[in-house]
Amino acid sequence: MTIVSYLNRAFNGFSSSSKILVVFFLSGGGLLSYSESQSNSPNNLEHERLACKKKVVVLGTGWASTSFLKDLDISRYDVQVVSPRNYFAFTPLLPSVTCGTVEARSIVEPIRNIIKKKDGEIQFWEAECTKIDAANKKVFCRSVIESSLVGKKEFALDYDYLVVATGAEVNTFNTPGVMEFCHFLKEVEDAQKIRRSVLDCFEKAILPDLTDEERRISLHFVIVGGGPTGVEFAAELHDFVHEDIVKLYPMVKDLVKITLIQSGDHILNTYDSRISSFAEQKFARDGINVNTGCRVLGVSNKEVNIKVKSTGENVSMPHSMVVWSTGVSTRPVVKDFMDQIGQGKRKVLATDEWLRVKGCENVYAVGDCATIDQRKIMEDIGAIFNAADKDKSGSLTVEEFQEIIDDVLIRYPQVGLHLQSKHLMSVTDLLNDPEGNARKEIDIEGFKSALSQVDSQMKSLPATAQVAAQQGTYLSSCFNKRELANFIPEGPRRFKGTGRHDFLPFRYKHLGSFAPLGGEQAAAELPGDWVSVGRSTQWLWYSIYASKQVSWRTRVLVVSDWTRRFIFGRDSSRI
Amino acid sequence: MTIVSYLNRAFNGFSSSSKILVVFFLSGGGLLSYSESQSNSPNNLEHERLACKKKVVVLGTGWASTSFLKDLDISRYDVQVVSPRNYFAFTPLLPSVTCGTVEARSIVEPIRNIIKKKDGEIQFWEAECTKIDAANKKVFCRSVIESSLVGKKEFALDYDYLVVATGAEVNTFNTPGVMEFCHFLKEVEDAQKIRRSVLDCFEKAILPDLTDEERRISLHFVIVGGGPTGVEFAAELHDFVHEDIVKLYPMVKDLVKITLIQSGDHILNTYDSRISSFAEQKFARDGINVNTGCRVLGVSNKEVNIKVKSTGENVSMPHSMVVWSTGVSTRPVVKDFMDQIGQGKRKVLATDEWLRVKGCENVYAVGDCATIDQRKIMEDIGAIFNAADKDKSGSLTVEEFQEIIDDVLIRYPQVGLHLQSKHLMSVTDLLNDPEGNARKEIDIEGFKSALSQVDSQMKSLPATAQVAAQQGTYLSSCFNKRELANFIPEGPRRFKGTGRHDFLPFRYKHLGSFAPLGGEQAAAELPGDWVSVGRSTQWLWYSIYASKQVSWRTRVLVVSDWTRRFIFGRDSSRI
Repeated sequence: MTIVSYLNRAFNGFSSSSKILVVFFLSGGGLLSYSESQSNSPNNLEHERLACKKKVVVLGTGWASTSFLKDLDISRYDVQVVSPRNYFAFTPLLPSVTCGTVEARSIVEPIRNIIKKKDGEIQFWEAECTKIDAANKKVFCRSVIESSLVGKKEFALDYDYLVVATGAEVNTFNTPGVMEFCHFLKEVEDAQKIRRSVLDCFEKAILPDLTDEERRISLHFVIVGGGPTGVEFAAELHDFVHEDIVKLYPMVKDLVKITLIQSGDHILNTYDSRISSFAEQKFARDGINVNTGCRVLGVSNKEVNIKVKSTGENVSMPHSMVVWSTGVSTRPVVKDFMDQIGQGKRKVLATDEWLRVKGCENVYAVGDCATIDQRKIMEDIGAIFNAADKDKSGSLTVEEFQEIIDDVLIRYPQVGLHLQSKHLMSVTDLLNDPEGNARKEIDIEGFKSALSQVDSQMKSLPATAQVAAQQGTYLSSCFNKRELANFIPEGPRRFKGTGRHDFLPFRYKHLGSFAPLGGEQAAAELPGDWVSVGRSTQWLWYSIYASKQVSWRTRVLVVSDWTRRFIFGRDSSRI
Repeated sequence: MTIVSYLNRAFNGFSSSSKILVVFFLSGGGLLSYSESQSNSPNNLEHERLACKKKVVVLGTGWASTSFLKDLDISRYDVQVVSPRNYFAFTPLLPSVTCGTVEARSIVEPIRNIIKKKDGEIQFWEAECTKIDAANKKVFCRSVIESSLVGKKEFALDYDYLVVATGAEVNTFNTPGVMEFCHFLKEVEDAQKIRRSVLDCFEKAILPDLTDEERRISLHFVIVGGGPTGVEFAAELHDFVHEDIVKLYPMVKDLVKITLIQSGDHILNTYDSRISSFAEQKFARDGINVNTGCRVLGVSNKEVNIKVKSTGENVSMPHSMVVWSTGVSTRPVVKDFMDQIGQGKRKVLATDEWLRVKGCENVYAVGDCATIDQRKIMEDIGAIFNAADKDKSGSLTVEEFQEIIDDVLIRYPQVGLHLQSKHLMSVTDLLNDPEGNARKEIDIEGFKSALSQVDSQMKSLPATAQVAAQQGTYLSSCFNKRELANFIPEGPRRFKGTGRHDFLPFRYKHLGSFAPLGGEQAAAELPGDWVSVGRSTQWLWYSIYASKQVSWRTRVLVVSDWTRRFIFGRDSSRI
C-alpha cells in the first residue's frame, strides 16, 4: 500500500461535516465501526437513485474531457467514458518528450486515477468509438487491444447526453507521402517514436564505410510547420544535439542540419510579431535553417519536395527524418456523425455558443473536434431592433439601446471586440453618425449600417489545450446547474423568441501562450498585450507548466525530470 | 551544458601530475593556452602509436562486455564495440520494469557514456554481428536500423583479438507456440511489452458484455519457469495487482489468478532449500498457484497445455498471457561460429579456464554465450604424477606432492571443492589409504584412485550477471598484463609441457544471490552458507542493487523510482 493511499484511506471518505465525529470516534477507538456502518447504507435507495439518473457518455480522455469530468457533479449523472487511451497526457510537454528532456511517463496520468477521486461512479472503457448513432442515442465501441483475448470486442452504450471530446487527427492536406514517411507530434507514442528515430539517425551516420555526404544526409532533420509545436521541437532537437549528443558522437557533430519549413512568411505567425522575429533571430544564431514561404509538395523516404513560393521553383531536399506539424483535421467517426446530422458539407463539427452540436439534440462537442459557430449579429439585427424598440416607434433611442446592450454584448461577443478595435469608449458610441457625432435616435437602416462591421471581428478559437480545458470546465458547470437553470435562467435574453437562454454562452479567456525556443530561452504572449522573451520567460514557463500538472505525481516527476536533465543531461539509450 | 559536464570540463582532462601546473597557469590566466598546446601534441607520433596497437573487437554491450571495457587499459589496444543495443541494461531489475516499480530508462546507460570515460578511444557501432570469420580474423556486421536511411548497412571489421560477449537467447526447448504466444524477460523491450500486456488484460476484463468466466480467463497470468526471474516476476505482478491495480479496477480484483509452472519439484531449486520452501509458503499465502512437477507441452493464443509428471495427466489451462522464463540457449551467430571451429556438436560455446575459445586462436568468450570447459584432473593424472615425482622413483612422497599442490589447486579447482565436500583438513589427506590412514608414499595407481572422485565436483557456472561481470573484469586484467606476463608468468605450472601458464585461470567468486518475493520481503543466499529471509533482506537488496548501478544517473533514477513507488504507487497508463 502506498503512503498516499494510506493517508487517503485514513482521512478521506468522510465528508467535512463528519470530521468532528471522526475526531471523537478516533479517540474512542471507534473509527472502524463507524466507517463500516457507513458502507452498509441502504442499497435499494442507491439503486433507485441511479436508475433515474441521466446517462452521460463522454468520448475521449484529453484536455476537454478531463476538465469536464473533474468538475462534473456525478451525484446527478451516470457517467461512462470511452477512449482508446486509458490516460490523460499533458500534451504541451510532448515536444520535450521527443528528446528526453521529460520522460513520457511523467506527463501521463491514468484516467481512472482522475475519475477515482469521484468515488468510482464514473466508468471507463478502453475502447474506440466507431460510430455515433444520434437517432437512437447510442454509441458503438470496439476494444483496441490487439491480442486475441477472450470474449467480444464490440459493445454499444446508450446515452441521454453525449459529450464528444475525441480531439482531432493530423492534417496532411492530402500531401503525398506524408502518412507513410513523416513523424507526427499528436500522441505520446509519436514523441517516443521520434526520440528513437533521432538516435537511429546518429547511430546510422556514425557507422563505418559511409561517405561524408551520406553522413550529412543521415543527419538532416526536417520539420514541416512553423507553429508553436514545430518551433518547440526544432529548439528541443537543437538543444539535444548541442548539449548531449555532441559529447557522445563528436565525430559527426558538424554534419547535423535542422531545417524548418513554413508556408507563411514568418514562423510563429499566430503570435505577436515581436515574438516571431525574436524566434527567427534566435534560430538564425543557432544555425537552424528557417525556410519560410515554402510549400511541401510531397515526401518520400529519401526526399522532401518543396515549392518556393517567391520564385516558383521546385526544390528537392534529401532528409533523414521529417516531422510533420501543420494543423489538425476531423476524425472519421466525427465526419460520419456530421453526415448523419446534416453537417456533411462542413470541414469541422459545428456547435453553438453553448457547445451544443448543431442539428442534434443532447450532443455536446468540446475541444479540437469541434468549432463554435458564433451567431452573426446581422442575422438577428431585425429581432434585436424590435426587442429594443419597446415603444414600437420605429426608431431606437440611446436609452432603449442601453437597456438591451448587456444582453447583446453577451450574446454577440464580436460587438465587444469591435469596440476595442475601433477604440470606442462606450457602446452607445456605436450609434454615432458616420462623422462621429452622437445621435439621439436611430432607425433600422441606420442600426444595420452601424453594426455592419461588427461580424468581421468573429474569430474561431485556436485548437489548443487551453481552449479545450476551458470548454470542458464550462460544460461541466452547465451540466451541474441544469435543473436550477430551468427556474432561474442565467443566460442573455432571446431576441428571437421569449425569455432568456438557460446559460451564459461559453467565453474563452486567453491566459497567454508560450513558445520555448531552446537554450533556456522562451517567448510568451501574456494577457493584456504583454510580450516577454528570454531566460526569465523560460523560468516562468517552468513554473506555470509545473503548476498546471494534473496530479501531484506528474508534477513531482516533471520537476525531477527537469532537474535530472540539468544534472545528468538527456539519456540517449535507444529504447 | 549540464552541471556534470561543466565540472568535468573544468577539472578533468588534466592528469594528476599536471595538476600543479594547472594551479600555476590558472593564476596567470594561462589555462587556455596550456590546454591548447596540449591538444596540438605531435599527431604523427599518435598515429604511429595507433597503427601498432592491436585491434580488439568486442561483441555485445551486456554485463561481460561492459565490465571488460570498464577496466581495459585502452592505451594498449584499439577497441571497437559492436552491439544492436547502444546501451547497457541493469538486467537484474528487469522484473521490476514489467510492473513499473522501476522505469525502463532508469536501468539503462548509453554504452557511449560508459566508454567515453576512456577519452573516446573506444568506438561503438550499433549493429548486429551476422558472422564471425575466424579464419580471416574478421566479423561481419549489419546495422539494425529499420528505416531506409542512406548508405550501406553492412560492414566488416578486422580484429587481432575478438571478445564474444553476445549473451544468449531464450530457450523454448522446441515447445510449440512459445515463440509466437509467450512473453520473455531478456531485454528491456520485453519488460515494456509485458507491462502493456498486463494492463491490456485488465482493460479487456473490465469491458461491458463479458461473462464472469471470460473476465476470469482475461485475468489468468501464467508464468513458466520457477527460477529467480520467473519467481520475481510473479511476486512483482502480485504486488502490482494488489497494491495498485485493485484500486483502479476494483470490480475485477477477485478474478485475478497467477499461476507459476515449474518442471522441478520446487521453485528456486538452485537456491538453498530453506529459501525454496520460504518462497513456496509465501506464495501459498499470497494466493499464487505454484504447479510444480509440470511440463509445458505447448502454448496457443488461448491455452497452455501441461503434462503433470506425477499422474501423467494432460491438462489444458486457458490464459490471458504467458511469460516464459526457463533458461537460455545459443544465438545463431555463435552456433555458426561453433560449426566453423569444430564445436558444432556442443550445445554451448566452450572456452578454457582462461576464457579462450577452444579450437580458435585469439578469440575469447565471456558471459552467457559461453561456458568454461574445466579440464578434468584425470586427463592429466599421469603428467601430474610425473611432474611431482622429481626423483623418478615411480612413487610419490608426501613432500613431493606438497611441492606441486598449490599449482594443482589453482589449475584444478575441483580438488578444493572435493576437499570441502569430504571435510578433509589438509590436501595431503587425499593421499591417505582407503581406511583413512596416512601413507608415506603412493604409486601411480594409488594416486589415480585417490583423485578419481575429484572431477565429479566440477560444476558449470550459472548464466548470471555476476558471473559475466567477473569474467569481463578478469579478461580485462589479462589483456592489461599481456606483455608483462610474457616475462613474468603468473599462472600455475604446465604439467604437460614446460614453464608456467601466463595467467591464473578465471575463478568465480560467488557474492550471494537474491530472490525478491514481493510484499517487501526477499530471500538471499549469502557467501558462507548464510541464508536470510524477510523484510530486512529486502532492504539489503535495495541497498546492494542501488550500489551496483553502473552510473550515478541510473543510481539516482532507480532510487527515486523506488521512492516514487512508495509515495504514489505504480503508474498504470498504457504507454
